[in-house]
Amino acid sequence: MSLLAVIALGGNALLRDGQLGTIDEQEQNTYDTLENIVFLIRKGYNIVITHGNGPQVGNILMQTDAGEQLYGIPQMPVDICVADSQGGVGYMIERMLRNVLKKHHISREVVTLITLTLVDPADPAFQNPTKRVGKKYTQEEAEKLEAVKGWKFKPEIKGNGGFRRVVPSPKPIRIMNHHVAETMARQGTIVIAAGGGGIPVFIDEDHNVRPAEVVVDKDLASARLASQIKADELFILTDVPFVYLDYKAPGEKPLETLSIKEAQQYLSENKFGEGSMAPKVEAAIQFLGNGGKKCIITEADKLSDKSFGTKIVKL
Amino acid sequence: MSLLAVIALGGNALLRDGQLGTIDEQEQNTYDTLENIVFLIRKGYNIVITHGNGPQVGNILMQTDAGEQLYGIPQMPVDICVADSQGGVGYMIERMLRNVLKKHHISREVVTLITLTLVDPADPAFQNPTKRVGKKYTQEEAEKLEAVKGWKFKPEIKGNGGFRRVVPSPKPIRIMNHHVAETMARQGTIVIAAGGGGIPVFIDEDHNVRPAEVVVDKDLASARLASQIKADELFILTDVPFVYLDYKAPGEKPLETLSIKEAQQYLSENKFGEGSMAPKVEAAIQFLGNGGKKCIITEADKLSDKSFGTKIVKL
Repeated sequence: MSLLAVIALGGNALLRDGQLGTIDEQEQNTYDTLENIVFLIRKGYNIVITHGNGPQVGNILMQTDAGEQLYGIPQMPVDICVADSQGGVGYMIERMLRNVLKKHHISREVVTLITLTLVDPADPAFQNPTKRVGKKYTQEEAEKLEAVKGWKFKPEIKGNGGFRRVVPSPKPIRIMNHHVAETMARQGTIVIAAGGGGIPVFIDEDHNVRPAEVVVDKDLASARLASQIKADELFILTDVPFVYLDYKAPGEKPLETLSIKEAQQYLSENKFGEGSMAPKVEAAIQFLGNGGKKCIITEADKLSDKSFGTKIVKL
Repeated sequence: MSLLAVIALGGNALLRDGQLGTIDEQEQNTYDTLENIVFLIRKGYNIVITHGNGPQVGNILMQTDAGEQLYGIPQMPVDICVADSQGGVGYMIERMLRNVLKKHHISREVVTLITLTLVDPADPAFQNPTKRVGKKYTQEEAEKLEAVKGWKFKPEIKGNGGFRRVVPSPKPIRIMNHHVAETMARQGTIVIAAGGGGIPVFIDEDHNVRPAEVVVDKDLASARLASQIKADELFILTDVPFVYLDYKAPGEKPLETLSIKEAQQYLSENKFGEGSMAPKVEAAIQFLGNGGKKCIITEADKLSDKSFGTKIVKL
């Protein structure tokens, strides 16, 4: 039986630092990234592709703000903006993948699913919103929006001051329609799903599906989906070739192999530095702990070169 | 075997005249509309839902314009905006449908597919762009955009002057991944697909899938999809209970039954008046001509009342 892999494309697979974010740039980056997974397809892997949406949903949030200011178009909430980004980014990946497959004379179907992710309203993350989304506001604007819309704000980390809206980032409990993704993927169709961590929803006391004004970490969502569909392998593609200890600090050290135990130890010591590596390592731990066989964290360009990348293993 | 139906939700199923377009309005309209198809689900129909995106993609086009003006975010092309709208609207329909099904204690899966629609670059529509999209510009702005971006403009029909971008509206040749929609629908899953007529693409001389800066009529795309998946019935839901001869003109007459022959005759005489009814009748003719058994054009509120609606029949 073919191996089933989940490949999580990071933000820079689609849009790179210093780029403007034109569609031409995004399409070229996506095409180049997908070239690097062709060898897995050739090997006969069944594949589910997940992806980030940070820059895209950030732009959509700012566009919906700008549309209200300039044209009086009502702003859309976070869940709709995430859904929009799943459509736009998912389509872009699907189209690029169809062209990459054509170039390599590979005949595989490609399907993009709009995907909802269930979160738990009792998740402690709801008490402490941390994820910055959308545009930068002045203190005055932030205070007004806090009063009018109930949004929460925190000072911007980078740049010259200002405030940004923060929303909670609860854990993904379940990726909906995972069995649809699994069935199609195991039949050989390449499935694009769970973009941006999935559209965040919760089930209320009346059993209705309701939108959550949150964002879900795309690596944790990818690991959740990978466990639900009993994937053999999880590839987390990012903008560095390795997981490092003390990244960009004195004593920086790339890791070729990392056991779950070591990973947990380093996580508790904050050895993965600031930024987005900690949730990736956490995603790897969860996937392997739930029965996954192999997890690789590396950059797309280096994926097909076996000497690159950090392999997280059970022992 | 269960009957397979395609249900095309018109713009006003989601957003009504005079409404602002808030997400609360759209969700309530969608919920109310979906209540009207419950009787078909109860009867055991297998169902594919398609939908319009006119107001939504219009807003997205204006938001992407506003985002460039206010924040310098590069504007996205039409295909990406259509894809975004498939994500946002498709998700909204999926969520509302899950809640309607829950209310009625019906257990059916719901899946939303991002859908590409192939158009023919040789379609004569490319020589004569007619479909107005996005915001209204002054003559000066329109001339500048024509020079810089190569966009085409026509005077606005309604309102007090101004110019709007026009794009071609070629015929849908093929809805991609139709077999995925068919397979899932025939297994009982309710499939949401081909939103906004599908994301318009064409195949270039190198066999690459390329974006088309066009919009595809959602009723013609729904009929195409219905034929491809060998659907038995096609329901086109709009904002009037009947197809009328001389709509809103002297001698206006509702039609309860309409044969293909009569429909073709009336179409050639422009008897369906200005607006969007002609493509709906054309969609009905095409569906029945390609083997469809029954086509109804009516408003959602009246769908379950058998005395309402125009039935288009072969003879």
